[in-house]
Formats: sequence, structure tokens, C-alpha cells
Amino acid sequence: MTVAGRLAEIAEIGRDAERGGYSRHVFDASDRPLRDWFRRSADALDLAVEEDGDANLWAWWGAPGEGAIATGSHLDSVPGGGAFDGPLGVASAFEAIAQLRRSGFVPSRPIAVCAFAEEEGSRFGMPCLGTRLLTGAVSAAAVLERRDATGTTLAQAWRDSGRDPERVGPDPERLGRVATFIELHVEQGRDLEDRGLPVSMASAIIPHGRWRLTIAGQGNHAGTTAMDLRADPVVALAGAVLAVREVAHSRMPGARGTIGKVQLVPGGTNVIASRAIAWMDLRATTDDDVREQFALTVARIRTAVEAEGCTLDVHEESFTPRVDFDPGLTAAITAALEPEFGPVPAIPTGAGHDAGILAGMLPTAMIFVRNPTGVSHAPQEGARDQDCEAGARALAASLRALAGAA
Amino acid sequence: MTVAGRLAEIAEIGRDAERGGYSRHVFDASDRPLRDWFRRSADALDLAVEEDGDANLWAWWGAPGEGAIATGSHLDSVPGGGAFDGPLGVASAFEAIAQLRRSGFVPSRPIAVCAFAEEEGSRFGMPCLGTRLLTGAVSAAAVLERRDATGTTLAQAWRDSGRDPERVGPDPERLGRVATFIELHVEQGRDLEDRGLPVSMASAIIPHGRWRLTIAGQGNHAGTTAMDLRADPVVALAGAVLAVREVAHSRMPGARGTIGKVQLVPGGTNVIASRAIAWMDLRATTDDDVREQFALTVARIRTAVEAEGCTLDVHEESFTPRVDFDPGLTAAITAALEPEFGPVPAIPTGAGHDAGILAGMLPTAMIFVRNPTGVSHAPQEGARDQDCEAGARALAASLRALAGAA
Repeated sequence: MTVAGRLAEIAEIGRDAERGGYSRHVFDASDRPLRDWFRRSADALDLAVEEDGDANLWAWWGAPGEGAIATGSHLDSVPGGGAFDGPLGVASAFEAIAQLRRSGFVPSRPIAVCAFAEEEGSRFGMPCLGTRLLTGAVSAAAVLERRDATGTTLAQAWRDSGRDPERVGPDPERLGRVATFIELHVEQGRDLEDRGLPVSMASAIIPHGRWRLTIAGQGNHAGTTAMDLRADPVVALAGAVLAVREVAHSRMPGARGTIGKVQLVPGGTNVIASRAIAWMDLRATTDDDVREQFALTVARIRTAVEAEGCTLDVHEESFTPRVDFDPGLTAAITAALEPEFGPVPAIPTGAGHDAGILAGMLPTAMIFVRNPTGVSHAPQEGARDQDCEAGARALAASLRALAGAA
Repeated sequence: MTVAGRLAEIAEIGRDAERGGYSRHVFDASDRPLRDWFRRSADALDLAVEEDGDANLWAWWGAPGEGAIATGSHLDSVPGGGAFDGPLGVASAFEAIAQLRRSGFVPSRPIAVCAFAEEEGSRFGMPCLGTRLLTGAVSAAAVLERRDATGTTLAQAWRDSGRDPERVGPDPERLGRVATFIELHVEQGRDLEDRGLPVSMASAIIPHGRWRLTIAGQGNHAGTTAMDLRADPVVALAGAVLAVREVAHSRMPGARGTIGKVQLVPGGTNVIASRAIAWMDLRATTDDDVREQFALTVARIRTAVEAEGCTLDVHEESFTPRVDFDPGLTAAITAALEPEFGPVPAIPTGAGHDAGILAGMLPTAMIFVRNPTGVSHAPQEGARDQDCEAGARALAASLRALAGAA
């Protein structure tokens, strides 16, 4: 079997005919077939499958127990996402174990393949839902009343899937078994493509803040209101969009700034809006950098908003500090990869991952696989077959090094 | 009774708790109570009420017949609209007839009060629905399959309201009775407030085009995509919004340009959008002016879109030519108003009206009543009580002049 062959088995599950690519969300129609694929893949390798109370899947090589090495990723996607973000890490874990088994390798510690629930947070708005619940980073109470776009609560969706909401929450005993976590993931930028390398390590997840901007103006008639009597929040929002771009692009090397979601109220074709709401996503190298980026950006936004005679309200929805992956673990894996791959760099990423949540609890590392387009969270995301196989070999080498005979 | 007292009778119908103001749409929960009010108002004045096949209401003083003078407006609103846009014209018509009756005036021609259906087009996206159907400006087939935001077709809503969709369509016989139409309306700008006048005539409805802009870029991950590798349609859209503003404000005196409705695809907080769709509303003095405004604006938009590495598609959704109201009728009404009001100007408006549709079929005029805020299509729209009464007196004087003894 190959990684590409494993991914081909799920290629028809959760396709999004409208957006292209895949829309796979927790407990939607794709959820059960994806979990069935996980179980079949584990069965074929004689791995024992269990599902924890937070809907995360575990497939064990060897009896579950302390000192385990866990590896895996997630099977859900953003709306209209690509084929690799998530599933590549799970398929590569199964493939790595298949290779180790074939080679006669006998691990000195238990190894588990994981598929964590709802990493993208696309249905209920909470990224890394499964690992946040498992680690207690969020409480069950804080998430079970969240609603999806149709108004269904997470608690209801949980029950409708045949699961028990009472079991949702931290599981220190299960988590305590895991000594090390490695997540293999498709790169979400073009760094490896530009360097001509198939794989790398991750050094860190850069910090990330999200703010909701509410710009209030004067709703009015689009046909009758003279241009110089307007306080149009959409014009002010245009200034905000350009401020986010300008600061991230020109003032803060390495920073990213994005507005990708907007609501206009009332949102009519022939009405000057009374209110524009926009979600601003800012990321930079350090926590302080993000705070500085925020201050610079909001100062410019405020100028644009006031020039239009509108008012601005800024609400912080989340701030995720920088996560540095475990240097010792990363060095050990790097050393295991160099015989095949030569020098293996460690690069930072701007994306959140379950590995970022688990890094707060235990030594954690990430392996990236080259993405020739650099595109992510869109159907154009890519990974060449031979790079996927290289990734599986890298993961196998890592497990061999970490779970070899003492 | 007063105009303000008549409006107070419907002040609680169709209030919008979320947006403020009123949301009154065809066949929604407000529709029947508003029609009941129309019937009660007519009954109190001994006017005979009929509803035509297009859901327009008519209340007749005298037997319906040829040579009639019709006056009125509409009872529906935009989402979160004001109290006067529409209902003021209907309430003033009843009040004017009440005054004429009290004075012992006996009209030489039939007079009808009208309330036309769904003038704002807020539910099914077709403004002036009732008059467009009545005149045949649109065919029944073209509108009955239109859907509202919940997916209900107009045909279904028509049936659910107890009406017969088979009766929808042009009614030349009924329309043929009407020799003259006068619509009284709250001003949708601040011209009369600035001039210190309670009422004016309308000279024309300025032309109006609506275009759908589709800007396509590269959807991608907000955290991992370097700023200089982006083709972000939201950044290009910001340039488009500013282009619309700049051309209307600085290049074309009297023009208006607005973007009030936007859709981002996929519209995630942590995703660079792949597509931005925006509706562009342009208006200027003449049809040629709007075409010039469009050309200037789109050239700037194209520059902004290409600078971001995106592509632009422009689709014309509608183009409504300039409507000039009947000069002879307007002069006759002006002459009737001058004894009380002194010089009465005729001013152009940027808003569409049922009077604009009917002006294509018969002599039509409009009377505007001062709006102290100048705001329209929003809860802050206003009209002082004494100006509302002045408007009713102006309408009564108009009817007296036009329907006096030959």
C-alpha cells in the first residue's frame, strides 16, 4: 500500500460540489464513512481501535499504556478544503506502521495512531475541538451549547450521532499514557517548494489573534443620499481592509493580516449599510509582535473610520500565544531523518494544529510535507505522490528512532 | 383626524425589534393588518374598496370609471425602514379626501386611493412589483417563480395568502380608468430641509443601474500564506468600494455610487476568500451620465483587481432609464399649491417609485414632504407632524384643482 493509495480510499467522501474540494465536518454525512475507513485501516494492521469521550479515535499498536508515542492528525476539513490537510497525517501514520511491521520492527513502547475530532472548527467555530476537550483547554460546558449554522447545538449533534455528551471533557488518564506526540501535516505555504525539499520539521506555531470589528455608520437610501452627506461603514471597512494589508505587508516582516469574513447590515443592494462587521485575523513572529501589529493596524483603521464619520468597536475574540515545539524531540527526529533526507530545516507555521494544543501537555513535534502550490484551505492544496511516500518514510524513521530497543 | 393620527393607527404593525423601524413585506405577518387598516380608513370615508389581481388596493370615491384621478403609494417597507416611506402617501390621500368631503367638495371625476403591493421589492427582489405587474412592465411568468430568502416562490406565497396566481398580470381595463396619478412621498434627502420648505414637486427620477461584480482570487490559509503571495479578492474589493465612492463623489456632480451588499466565499474568519461578490448601485443625472460613471468606475476597479492578481467579471442586473414627470400636470399642481405655499420647486430624486412605473403609461406627478433628517430606508427617516398635515392640504388642493367642476 501507499499513502496515495490510502487517500484514494476516501477520495469520494465529503466532496463539495459547490465550492470544490471537500467539506467534512464533525458528525456530518462524511463523519461515519471517514471513521469507518480509520477502523478498516487499523484492522488491516491489527491495531486495536478505541474512541474516547471526545470523539477522538485511537488505534493502538501494542497494549495501550504509559510511555506511548502517538502520531496522527484529523479527518475533517474547512468548507471547500483540500484533500491533504489532516488526512495526510492519518494515512501516513498507518503507512509508517505498515512499513515498520513489514520490516519486522518491534516497538519498545506502545504506538498509537490518532484522528482528532473537528480540528478545523468549521461546524461549531471551535478549532482543535477534540484535543481542547481532551486536554481540558476548554470545558465541556463551554462548548456543548455552541450552535452550528442551522442552530443545532453541539450537545444535540453529539446525541444525534449516538454518542453521550456526559462523556465529553478532559481525560487525564488517557492523555497520561502519551509520552510523545508527532503530527505529520502537508505544508500550508510554499517554503519547502522554494527550498526544493520534500520534508521538514516545524519549529513553532506563530501567535494568532482574532478581533471582531464593528463599524457603525448611518443607514440610508443609496439613490437619494448625496455623497458628502454619507457615513457609509462599507467605505470605512474598505479602509480597514487596506490597513490590515498595509501593516502586515510593509511594516511587520513575516506578519500576516487577513479579513475573510464580513457582514453588512442590512445588506441591501440599494441601501447604504448602517453597520459593517468584519473579522480580523493577525499573526506575527512573537506575541509582542502581534500586539504591535494590532496597535498599528487599529490606529489606521480608526483614522479611516473617523474620516467617514463612522464609529469603531473592537472586540478580541481570541488570542493564541506562540507555541514552540519541543527542541529535544525535534532534534532527535531531525537526526533520524538526515541519513535519507540530508539537512532537514525546522520552519515556523502560521496555522493552528492539534499538535499546538498537545504541546502544552507533552513533548510534541511536527513534520511537514511539501505542497507544490503552497495553497491551503482550498481545493488547490497539493502534495505530490512521491512526497507523500517520503513523508511516510520520515514518520517511520521517527517512530523507529523513538520506539527502538532501549 | 390628522395624517399623524392615521399613521399612529399602524405604528405597531410590522416593527423590527432587531433592526429598529419597520419590516413590512408582501404577504408577511404585517400584510393583512395593513390591508385591514386601508379598508377601515376607506369605509370611514364611504369609499368602495377593491383589490386587483396584482394585490394592489383601490378605494373609490365615486363609481370607478374613466378619467379618474388616482393617488396613493405603498404600505410595505425595506427591512428596518422608516415609518413614512409609503404609508405617508396613503394616509395623506385618505386625509385629503376627508378634508374635501368636509368642505362639501363634489368631484367631477372619480378619485381613487391606491396602495400598491411590494414597492420596495424587499421580499422577492422586484421593486414596484404591484405596478410593474399592473402595467405589464413585467410578466406574471417572470416573477411568480422568484423565491424569497427562505426559498418560497412568489406563486406559493400568493396562494398561501388566499389569492389566485392565475389573476396576476396586466389589467389594461382597470388601468385605463386612470387619467392621472399623483404620489405623495416623504423626501428621501435633505433638500427641502435645507431650503426651509414643507413641500415640493418632483421633476424626475434620475436613472439607475445595478451591476454585480465578481472578483475571483486565490482562496488560501490566512495564517500560512505570505502577504506577497496573495491574490485576495477582499483587498481588491476594498479598492472597488473606494473607486465607486471616488468617482461618484469627485468626478460626476450629483451622481451617487454605493456598494451595500457583499458576499465573500467561503467567508471564514481564518481563510483568505477565493471570491468576493458585490452589488454596485450607480445613479446620475442622465442615462448617459450613468454610463459614463460606470465606465470611469469600472476602469478604476479593474486596476485595483489586477494589481491584486485577481480577475473581474461585471454583470448588469438592471438599468432603469431616467423618468421625467409630466410637466403640464406638475405645473397645474404647482399653481394650485402656490396660494398657500408660495413658490414650489420641482426637484429630482434618486429613488424609484410606483409613480415612475406609471409615468410610462399616463400623466403622473409627485409631491414631496420635508424630511428633517434626510435619512431614508432606515429608522431615522422622519417627517414633522405639521409637514405631514401640510402635505395632506397640498394633496387636497391638487385634487380640488384637477377634479373641480369643469
